[in-house]
Amino acid sequence: MSSPRIAVGVDIGGTKVLGALVDETGAVLREHRVLSPGPWPDMRDAIVGVINELRTGVPELHAVGVGAAGMVDLDGVIHYAPNVPGFRRVPVRASLAEATGLPTTVDNDANTAAYAEIRVGAARGVRDAIVITLGTGIGGGVILGGRVLRGANGFAAEVGHFQIDPVGPMCACGELGHWEAMASGNALGRMAREAAAAGEAPSLLERAHGKVDVIDGHHVSAAAHAGAADALALVDHYAFNVAIGLVGLANIFDPSLIAIAGGLVNDGDLFLEPMRRHFLGHIEGAQYRPTPEIIPAEMGERAGVIGAALLALDRANDAAAPL
Amino acid sequence: MSSPRIAVGVDIGGTKVLGALVDETGAVLREHRVLSPGPWPDMRDAIVGVINELRTGVPELHAVGVGAAGMVDLDGVIHYAPNVPGFRRVPVRASLAEATGLPTTVDNDANTAAYAEIRVGAARGVRDAIVITLGTGIGGGVILGGRVLRGANGFAAEVGHFQIDPVGPMCACGELGHWEAMASGNALGRMAREAAAAGEAPSLLERAHGKVDVIDGHHVSAAAHAGAADALALVDHYAFNVAIGLVGLANIFDPSLIAIAGGLVNDGDLFLEPMRRHFLGHIEGAQYRPTPEIIPAEMGERAGVIGAALLALDRANDAAAPL
Repeated sequence: MSSPRIAVGVDIGGTKVLGALVDETGAVLREHRVLSPGPWPDMRDAIVGVINELRTGVPELHAVGVGAAGMVDLDGVIHYAPNVPGFRRVPVRASLAEATGLPTTVDNDANTAAYAEIRVGAARGVRDAIVITLGTGIGGGVILGGRVLRGANGFAAEVGHFQIDPVGPMCACGELGHWEAMASGNALGRMAREAAAAGEAPSLLERAHGKVDVIDGHHVSAAAHAGAADALALVDHYAFNVAIGLVGLANIFDPSLIAIAGGLVNDGDLFLEPMRRHFLGHIEGAQYRPTPEIIPAEMGERAGVIGAALLALDRANDAAAPL
Repeated sequence: MSSPRIAVGVDIGGTKVLGALVDETGAVLREHRVLSPGPWPDMRDAIVGVINELRTGVPELHAVGVGAAGMVDLDGVIHYAPNVPGFRRVPVRASLAEATGLPTTVDNDANTAAYAEIRVGAARGVRDAIVITLGTGIGGGVILGGRVLRGANGFAAEVGHFQIDPVGPMCACGELGHWEAMASGNALGRMAREAAAAGEAPSLLERAHGKVDVIDGHHVSAAAHAGAADALALVDHYAFNVAIGLVGLANIFDPSLIAIAGGLVNDGDLFLEPMRRHFLGHIEGAQYRPTPEIIPAEMGERAGVIGAALLALDRANDAAAPL
């Protein structure tokens, strides 16, 4: 029996470079992380250092996969990365392939996280799925017919950036009322601080010792679990905002599954139950069609590196071409 | 040299059944239409009658393709058709295949229209394109990697049904502020009547001889072409509504081309120019990426039947599998 094929997955973040040695079953064999050294080419040297550290003693390494927050084209050129200053049209894939001598894949980190979920996570075996990460922003990965949606240039699946309210809060991208601005993990914190400042969230204010500015989503979760009406109202309002975006995406993609990632899903059904309820109340033609399940993602914080490694292995194997 | 392969395309509408004999180049050889006879099975008999009329004298007919407004699943079962009462879970494909003895394809009419555009129309040869029809509602067809996006069940590409304004007008589907309710051809007429009723559209009121109720999009076009400021303001506002939805879809799909169909594109750049301007002002990362062209569709009112026939021919040929 042959040994499982092995790849290094790398997650390029604003503060750190996280690498993991991952086998084709998605198991993490070893991890290595370094602080982010700043712009290219220092970043390249740091990534190559992480890869070399991880491959030491490995008889055969088959591929390198990289996930990065930002706009990554089909050749693995990072056009723009919001958290890494100076990352403009950098040929990351070509450069790492040259430095390592290995087949290399670079993709958006939300896409690699989604790929991890369909290969070995919550959406295992599902051909049409959407994976949404509710965090600082909204990350989206769309899988159609088992392939990662990339679009004509690689910039597809920016699912946080459609308007749901023309007078909504400003998005990180500068537009008003984008879904990301109203339904990200950060948006929940903002909604809670606004409610507290307006005198509508006394239980949150109490938990934050009267300091509006320190209130975040964790206070909402804790107060809601304790049954505080003000927090439960915020949970419902926030879940509605999430659901309205999911409705649009389901009408557009008709997936069989929507997996939600992010700290909020650690709260079990606290957020998921009202998301499902609002979703079913607003999806097009609910009485005439199967509707997608909404379930928690399973891969956690390593989804990005594991998915990057699996994507690289599958593409080196001539499968999993981007769509 | 062999003769071109030939199919019958059929468009099932609320008032008529339109059929056309179409060859593999998209040329319409012959047309036949009958008044819609009402629900199934009368509708089946009418469709079979149209097909038989068209195939008379044709040495070899290769396939039948049907487009219908409504929710059509991957087996060609029409789950719901808004304009054809009683059309509930009708196995249209299987029934027509049995009656005609021919390979038969049934799809949503916006999908077949989009397929016509990428095969022989404005998006010829483009692999990632969106075709939007601005009419009574908004019809959308999404082509990814040359294939029609259908989703897990066949109900994908309902692109008119995502919320862009939580307090916007009610959509035909019952939801508030969907893109369709704010950017369809009908929405332009509604906006014009509202402006006239509010005393903000004197030039339209004059053209309609003082009757607010008869004002529609044609009055807006005519007055705008004549340079009336009130009409030009309406064109700009409407074009903004269209653009905001296109921005969302472009961020989600990253197409290389967006083709717009519907009566409005007969007005040349009157609507298209402000749509393009607002689109470029709001798309994500415009400075870091190629942005899709927005062009008029070319296939006109026969897009649906021609696309249905081409899709049927290509699928009978084992190509063009749905995505």
